[in-house]
Amino acid sequence: MKTQRFAAGVEYDGARFKGWQSQPGVATVQDALERALGRVADRPVRTVAAGRTDAGVHATGQVAHFDGPAKRRADDWKLGGNSALPDGVSIRWVRRVPDDFHARFAAQRRAYRYVILNQPVRPALFHGHVSWEYRPLDPRRMAEAARHLLGACDFSAFRASSCQSQRPLKTVYRADLKARGRWIWLDVEADGFLQHMVRNVAGVLLAVGRLEREPGWCREVLESRDRRRAAATAPPHGLYLTRVTYEDRYALPEPAAAPVFW
Amino acid sequence: MKTQRFAAGVEYDGARFKGWQSQPGVATVQDALERALGRVADRPVRTVAAGRTDAGVHATGQVAHFDGPAKRRADDWKLGGNSALPDGVSIRWVRRVPDDFHARFAAQRRAYRYVILNQPVRPALFHGHVSWEYRPLDPRRMAEAARHLLGACDFSAFRASSCQSQRPLKTVYRADLKARGRWIWLDVEADGFLQHMVRNVAGVLLAVGRLEREPGWCREVLESRDRRRAAATAPPHGLYLTRVTYEDRYALPEPAAAPVFW
Repeated sequence: MKTQRFAAGVEYDGARFKGWQSQPGVATVQDALERALGRVADRPVRTVAAGRTDAGVHATGQVAHFDGPAKRRADDWKLGGNSALPDGVSIRWVRRVPDDFHARFAAQRRAYRYVILNQPVRPALFHGHVSWEYRPLDPRRMAEAARHLLGACDFSAFRASSCQSQRPLKTVYRADLKARGRWIWLDVEADGFLQHMVRNVAGVLLAVGRLEREPGWCREVLESRDRRRAAATAPPHGLYLTRVTYEDRYALPEPAAAPVFW
Repeated sequence: MKTQRFAAGVEYDGARFKGWQSQPGVATVQDALERALGRVADRPVRTVAAGRTDAGVHATGQVAHFDGPAKRRADDWKLGGNSALPDGVSIRWVRRVPDDFHARFAAQRRAYRYVILNQPVRPALFHGHVSWEYRPLDPRRMAEAARHLLGACDFSAFRASSCQSQRPLKTVYRADLKARGRWIWLDVEADGFLQHMVRNVAGVLLAVGRLEREPGWCREVLESRDRRRAAATAPPHGLYLTRVTYEDRYALPEPAAAPVFW
């Protein structure tokens, strides 16, 4: 039987998984999703995601594709998949897509949100879902630093040592930092991201926010292309993959609103 | 040694505890807090809370008092207590209070927020921290129904069968329902609450929001004083104790902002 390709919008709570990618012996989002879709198909299903998020990283707007090995309507994959999925991961939508659609390679832009809770006391709520900073932060300085990230740049200074990307040149379309009360959140949208790129950016912005560095230091780090110049990688718990953009002709649904807490 | 009375602002994630009140063999907030404060004092410490929240119910603004059996400054209780507390509960502040202060009996008002996530798909994030309704809700109808709760009323129709309160007459000062996108939240402030009162109110408002009942039905239920007239009790996961108000002379700190997600 000829398979049919589908795209799915996937939301997950990264605190419950060891990242997206299949790994033997640990719970990953990909394994949970493939097991659930496999139940719907009564045959193994393989999925490909737009972004292979790290352990602890959440998604409200992940997109994955799969080739259905059995004839099912989009809604059967969604409803059947959801009823077979564990807590902490759900399928928001499923759409039939042309065979040339590829969740990873056809993605034009990806957007992440990094959420910081800035208060002296360790938070009891939101554990594993936000990044906590107990030292006071100045969000205006952080927003100023973030603007240095805009445009086409070599982001080598913000990549993980284990990053396997061939191409450290990325174009950042958006790098907005907002604050409201004790909450600070950073939205970054780019054509692609290197491994740990947003968390390394957040680490630099946190150092600027704590007044340890000037906002212009963000540009210095970027221009150095030297990973050793950047600050410590910020923890994964505050990070959400919020949106993946494809050509309009695929007509995929809008993602859910990115999370804000206050 | 003469003890000194302290008040503490306590935040907790109800998903991690079987409610406030001490119980043998299960994790409760009171037990965790008393164990942590006992470590600071090197002696047993007993606490009394403003509201004995049920299993699954969260707090951003719980207030408890305790008599310090050892001479410690307010900050010692806070910092030492926090370093001994498990994830999911934290002490936001500690203040020395006069011996006539009583977290429960001196409370003039209490405020709760009930948070509903209204979307067809089961949420992957916020599990245990919001109440999910998959059927479409009309928040304007719900807000209209909520207004019937204002004023002094006998809330017998909204009490749990196990409620031990002697006095079902409560005065509701605030019953505001707001909506933003897929989020709906209800703020209720009253001089006191019966057991399950907010969850029973939320159950009635959900029935109104789903168009199963007219907004005026809320008043009918209230006036009936008959628990069997109300709807099913809404789940605890969406409920947050957000504020407890005392006389100004105690000069207690403002609670953290109540949680909103969107």
